[in-house]
Amino acid sequence: VISFCWSFQDVAYNALQMGVSDPRKIVFSAKMGLALVLISLLIFLDLKAPFDGLSQYSVWAILTVVVVFEFSIGATLSKGFNRGLGTLSAGGLALGMAELSALAGEGEEIVIILSIFIIGFCATYAKLYPTMKPYEYGFRVFLLTYCFIMVSGYRTKEFIHTAVTRFLAIALGAGVCLVVNICIYPIWAGEDLHNLVAKNFRSVATSLEGCVNGYLNCVEYERIPSKILTYQASDDPVYSGYRSAVESTSQEDALLSFAIWEPPHGPYKSFHYPWKNYVKVSGALRYCAFMVMALHGCILSEIQASAERRQVFRDELRRVGAEGAKVLRELGDKVKKMEKLGSGDILYEVHEAAEELQNKIDRKSYLLVNSECWEIGNRAKVVEAQDLTSLNEDQNRILEFKSRSEALLDLRSLIIPKSWDARDAKTGATVPQNDPPERLFREQLSMPTRISFDADGKAPVQESKTYESASSLSLVTFTSLLIEFVARLQNLVVSFDELCENANFKDPVDVSVAA
Amino acid sequence: VISFCWSFQDVAYNALQMGVSDPRKIVFSAKMGLALVLISLLIFLDLKAPFDGLSQYSVWAILTVVVVFEFSIGATLSKGFNRGLGTLSAGGLALGMAELSALAGEGEEIVIILSIFIIGFCATYAKLYPTMKPYEYGFRVFLLTYCFIMVSGYRTKEFIHTAVTRFLAIALGAGVCLVVNICIYPIWAGEDLHNLVAKNFRSVATSLEGCVNGYLNCVEYERIPSKILTYQASDDPVYSGYRSAVESTSQEDALLSFAIWEPPHGPYKSFHYPWKNYVKVSGALRYCAFMVMALHGCILSEIQASAERRQVFRDELRRVGAEGAKVLRELGDKVKKMEKLGSGDILYEVHEAAEELQNKIDRKSYLLVNSECWEIGNRAKVVEAQDLTSLNEDQNRILEFKSRSEALLDLRSLIIPKSWDARDAKTGATVPQNDPPERLFREQLSMPTRISFDADGKAPVQESKTYESASSLSLVTFTSLLIEFVARLQNLVVSFDELCENANFKDPVDVSVAA
Repeated sequence: VISFCWSFQDVAYNALQMGVSDPRKIVFSAKMGLALVLISLLIFLDLKAPFDGLSQYSVWAILTVVVVFEFSIGATLSKGFNRGLGTLSAGGLALGMAELSALAGEGEEIVIILSIFIIGFCATYAKLYPTMKPYEYGFRVFLLTYCFIMVSGYRTKEFIHTAVTRFLAIALGAGVCLVVNICIYPIWAGEDLHNLVAKNFRSVATSLEGCVNGYLNCVEYERIPSKILTYQASDDPVYSGYRSAVESTSQEDALLSFAIWEPPHGPYKSFHYPWKNYVKVSGALRYCAFMVMALHGCILSEIQASAERRQVFRDELRRVGAEGAKVLRELGDKVKKMEKLGSGDILYEVHEAAEELQNKIDRKSYLLVNSECWEIGNRAKVVEAQDLTSLNEDQNRILEFKSRSEALLDLRSLIIPKSWDARDAKTGATVPQNDPPERLFREQLSMPTRISFDADGKAPVQESKTYESASSLSLVTFTSLLIEFVARLQNLVVSFDELCENANFKDPVDVSVAA
Repeated sequence: VISFCWSFQDVAYNALQMGVSDPRKIVFSAKMGLALVLISLLIFLDLKAPFDGLSQYSVWAILTVVVVFEFSIGATLSKGFNRGLGTLSAGGLALGMAELSALAGEGEEIVIILSIFIIGFCATYAKLYPTMKPYEYGFRVFLLTYCFIMVSGYRTKEFIHTAVTRFLAIALGAGVCLVVNICIYPIWAGEDLHNLVAKNFRSVATSLEGCVNGYLNCVEYERIPSKILTYQASDDPVYSGYRSAVESTSQEDALLSFAIWEPPHGPYKSFHYPWKNYVKVSGALRYCAFMVMALHGCILSEIQASAERRQVFRDELRRVGAEGAKVLRELGDKVKKMEKLGSGDILYEVHEAAEELQNKIDRKSYLLVNSECWEIGNRAKVVEAQDLTSLNEDQNRILEFKSRSEALLDLRSLIIPKSWDARDAKTGATVPQNDPPERLFREQLSMPTRISFDADGKAPVQESKTYESASSLSLVTFTSLLIEFVARLQNLVVSFDELCENANFKDPVDVSVAA
């Protein structure tokens, strides 16, 4: 009993949480209760006016309320429309068929049964057609109405009375639904869609920052959560940020299909409001989010660049990440507030930052490759030992020197830039810090060997070098994915502009003027 | 009229197409018609046996058939269960409340109305709770039944009769549904899930091959279809391949929720068949597909590596792509045939190929970076002009040479490897082909400047160099994404093994033994 009490408390607590986090759910439930009460009262009062015995068909009114009363106005309207159309057309067809079957005299029952089979087959087949998906419910109602009228009409021989009373009952239920749902605290699917898109911007921005910071702080997953590996929902904030944006497609499609049913309301003042453009902007955002996903993949990867190398590009990477997130947040805000972009180029800063990162990579690209086993060096020696007639002496010497300089460079690649950078503004003297090179080597060896090469033939030294090279290439990958992310922002801005245009967003309030 | 005829022909043709491509849809429609005919016949025969006037409640039987008869067995069972549970519990509750309200005497109506509101509120609120999602339909039926019994029971004072007859009618409808749906050509959701997962393997494999080949053939999109930019469905075969695998989550979840309702059947012989593992394998595949998506991003990107550089890695890239696709196809086949992996390591070949690619990158990494503006060269000159005490003479000279050799190297980076590779097996002589360096330069400048840097301050030369460097880094990105893809295959194999284990896949038929 005690454990039952506890679990009851748990349930109550969770239910309360849900209500607090989204009070609309409480309101909606109350509205549902109210609609049911209203329809019951109407039946109790036993409206005599249009037809006797409407209350005998009360079940249709209740059924309509229960089925049509949906969370958002758009969904209610769309279901109501489906129900109305299905009922009307089925009613018409059934009355026609009833007349026909009466002509058949003796074979009446056979005609009725046959017609039920044919109609059942056709309606079911049609609703399976992909473009008919939104009207699936309509087909169901059509079938139900047709069968019901045929069957109960045959029994009572009151086809018309059945059809009309049923239609009145449904209209009554639908009327109650619409009045309660629209007049009392309406919940709009369009608003949900709008908020969802704005929220996606924020979550991708958070993910982006998380990725860049995580990468710079050398966050490593001890063990990658298997939920990430199988793309299931997970708590990881970086992961859940972009995942929610990527996964929202089906939700957006559903909201879109309801939003187009909604009349102009609130800030969405025009007929044919361009809801489609919201979905498009969200799609362009998703296209950016895939890059964030790939960036996260660099963190999840087993082959990682060493922390020291990452630090070289620290400031630039961080700046691009921060500016990128800023742009996303600003666009999200603009979507939320329905404002146009300001006069300045919103991408200016992030492009600056990306260019700077690119320049830095250019200057420091010797950090990114493993030059020790460059073919060019080894080749030069081979060529030297052979026939030299076709090579002029000068070029050859340079190549040889190069191979030596490279060998030196590789050993110090981690050390030299650090000391240079540190003294940049102070003196011109170079004091190479002699970090023991074993440390680097050990780090490379300790890398997990998920790609398990065959262990027999290869010497461990070569393996470790392969990893070393792969590890620095991973830094290249991270940066160039980040730059590609910045490039994709352009496309996002274009589709945002299109949305502004079609949805008549207001001009931004210029803060400097207002102040 | 003629245009109407044409469009009718069109519709008929499309409908026929649908039937041919999936004959199950025709069968299902026919089954639906049959079920409706059966239930109508039963009502016509007016079963007298258990209760009089069951046919008066015929509507419930028809309604049940229309609503519960779903495409797959699992969906039918799950809906039937929901409907049955909802009806039973609501019936019980309604009878209890009816007794209670009768005690209230005068206030009976108020009690009934109040109870409808409270039940309506609670049931609606509960169904909004996320974990209650699969039982959404049950809650609807619960509400409907409760209201109907209370209202119509109050009118006729025959609570128990209403409740029992209604339940019998629903049971009749559900019985007809189940018999027709299970006994005649059953359509299993589990089988659909199984096929969907196997199909995803094939589409990702096709996409992967398309990406690698497209990259090597320097496929460029004149204009990237805006559908790709906003992540909508598109015809592009590479794109639609991975997109379908990525987008199938919601479909898989739906099929999973039905499949768990299905009894053991056909090749799925155990209770609690591990359908969840199929979804997990598909998730792991999706995790690989994200890398294919990123690879495709490299093709879509505006910043591209030059064709010559790609050709250097041609064979290795192609081999990794082909081996990767082979592994995916083989796994897909194994899933389809429900076979375990063979004794050999399925990943051996693709790991070999990836390692070879990695080695080639190591040897040729000078092709991948733009060394012209390496800080190390410029710095050396600055240091030279200043205080040299801390640097020994030798080291300094090497650095100086390096800067010169690099400058040379950069101009020829496109030419040297080609000539070397071409003569690899023939002679040892080196004849540098003197392609005019302007060609390279023009190519860089003609790159679209989607990242529009500010046009005022920077000299065009620097801009072009930045692009040049970025363009070769793009090749690095492509290869390292490909290698990461190979790494992720391991994870896919792990989850496939888990599926084999849990689902008791059969041992593979060893072809060499059988022969």
